[in-house]
Amino acid sequence: MSGDAIAATLRRIGALDEAAMTAARARQRELTKPEGSLGRLEDLAVQVAGIVGAAVPELPRKAVIVVAADHGVAVEGVSAYPSEVTAQMVANFLSGGAAINALARAAGARVVVVDAGVAGDVPSGPALYSRKIARGTRNLRRAPAMSRDQAREAVFVGTDVLECEAARGLDLVATGEMGIGNTTPASAIVAAICGTSVAEVTGRGTGIDDETLARKIAVIEDALRLHRPDSSDALDVLAKIGGFEIGVLAGVIIGAAARRIPIVLDGFISGAAALIANGLDPKARDFMIAAHRSAERGHRAALDRLALEPLLDLRLRLGEGTGAVLAMLLIDAALAAHREMATFAEARVADRSIRS
Amino acid sequence: MSGDAIAATLRRIGALDEAAMTAARARQRELTKPEGSLGRLEDLAVQVAGIVGAAVPELPRKAVIVVAADHGVAVEGVSAYPSEVTAQMVANFLSGGAAINALARAAGARVVVVDAGVAGDVPSGPALYSRKIARGTRNLRRAPAMSRDQAREAVFVGTDVLECEAARGLDLVATGEMGIGNTTPASAIVAAICGTSVAEVTGRGTGIDDETLARKIAVIEDALRLHRPDSSDALDVLAKIGGFEIGVLAGVIIGAAARRIPIVLDGFISGAAALIANGLDPKARDFMIAAHRSAERGHRAALDRLALEPLLDLRLRLGEGTGAVLAMLLIDAALAAHREMATFAEARVADRSIRS
Repeated sequence: MSGDAIAATLRRIGALDEAAMTAARARQRELTKPEGSLGRLEDLAVQVAGIVGAAVPELPRKAVIVVAADHGVAVEGVSAYPSEVTAQMVANFLSGGAAINALARAAGARVVVVDAGVAGDVPSGPALYSRKIARGTRNLRRAPAMSRDQAREAVFVGTDVLECEAARGLDLVATGEMGIGNTTPASAIVAAICGTSVAEVTGRGTGIDDETLARKIAVIEDALRLHRPDSSDALDVLAKIGGFEIGVLAGVIIGAAARRIPIVLDGFISGAAALIANGLDPKARDFMIAAHRSAERGHRAALDRLALEPLLDLRLRLGEGTGAVLAMLLIDAALAAHREMATFAEARVADRSIRS
Repeated sequence: MSGDAIAATLRRIGALDEAAMTAARARQRELTKPEGSLGRLEDLAVQVAGIVGAAVPELPRKAVIVVAADHGVAVEGVSAYPSEVTAQMVANFLSGGAAINALARAAGARVVVVDAGVAGDVPSGPALYSRKIARGTRNLRRAPAMSRDQAREAVFVGTDVLECEAARGLDLVATGEMGIGNTTPASAIVAAICGTSVAEVTGRGTGIDDETLARKIAVIEDALRLHRPDSSDALDVLAKIGGFEIGVLAGVIIGAAARRIPIVLDGFISGAAALIANGLDPKARDFMIAAHRSAERGHRAALDRLALEPLLDLRLRLGEGTGAVLAMLLIDAALAAHREMATFAEARVADRSIRS
């Protein structure tokens, strides 16, 4: 059933609106500045115009969807923190004390939390979607992280949460996550889909030492040898070596693309989710905005694969959606310039065409 | 007289407050995130703590000071736009229609305009400081751009405007400028102070073609040969090959440093002004935050000389302070995280030190 729902969502993903983009480009040329001088702010205005289908868009209602889950592979000692921290941080999100809460407030975005499979119990709260698929994935070194049905269910949860949030009013959505150990499945996904070596796309996550990093690489190599995920089948990759939060975020992405809501991708884990979404339907990619380049080394390969250029490079490596909400500030500013600036004619400023 | 006032301002520039920075670093370690995982946001919080002398700072009152002037060298045909555009754009700033107006609104910063030497007449308005030093500089290819007295006067105007704005309430200041032709003196200053070749630090400004670029380089080379500015004497450099807006911005910078107000530097022209300020007193540099790397090629040399790493790289090349107000959004967000996040103890989250 969730398979049918996913297929229905995918069918609704369209192309960018070329007419709106052409009109947005024309407006940019008339604004009182040398053509192109606002650089990537101009590109953002044009892309958003194409996504929402309006020449002069505005995106007032914002949310960051922070999806949390645990990972069986944590027993292999691949993280600097114990799994209990996932549930503790979810509680921190719900009480407003985490980095994402402070930064989302600064960006005018609401924080929505999804428990997609946290091992421990999580306090309830109005900002929480309680959608545990299981209490953590299995250890991907020994078994598939989840069944194919669970992978489908994870993607469906993402599309469903997106629909609920859209019903509350949503113009711009950011992806965020929390899950101790989740850079391990993310690196595995990037290696599998991008065809890179594991060492090339595996980093220090929250700050592991050399010995732990070597172990983490070995664990991922073992998992890829054991499961041989089919890189042309995104659900297969997700099921064998993924994580519940990654699957849910892939669902959030395709759900937002179907609704023509621009998606601001956070860092490395979000990049892995974007690769899964892109595998489900490559048209989803046009609705994505890469917020930042994470300090986590595998992020570059994921962004290159998606041909996305990040807006920021601030050496962030926290996740939660922190980089994505920072990028929302830039997107808002880009649209403000696009919407509010005077044209050469309005301001009676000489354009270069009438150079003396 | 303005020389005495400048000297008095320079004497008030102190060092960063090490105790406040130590306290800010300690707080960052206690917040619920892996140490260092907020990357440059953490560095910003610590630097601002050191500037304002408080462990947990807040910077609610913001202004961008946009200084406008004309350039005699424009007669050499070094710009894509005619000099009349400077006055027209000042009118646009005052009526709120320029990019800086839209972006400053998004950042919660007021726009203050200084006429430091626009050739044409400028409409008056409550946001305008009318401080024409002359109706444009002289053509630096043929004569010193200004007298040493005028250079001193320009720096004094900057310190004076900063004092007036501080009296209105100012916690964070951004530098901005407008002046058709002003990348020519800026490139000359960067070449003179950084000791690079002119070609290396001369770019296309608002978008000139190859032929104009070659002429622009030749003009700057002629000027440097003619005047031989003394790179160890910032006022000499400013007088011979500078611009009024560049001098005023240097004054804004030293004035803000003297008042311990963090200074957000915009792009290439602001970088040249920062080099002049740094020449007046190298301690000023510690109070600067580089907003972005401009698409104008000489900017890199200026930032390297000041050992400043820009926050953004969005291919901006407009000036006006546009990149600086965008960076204000990131600075605000960095301070919000620093101030509002829960500590491990408050949130009952396990720190890595108690890893199971």
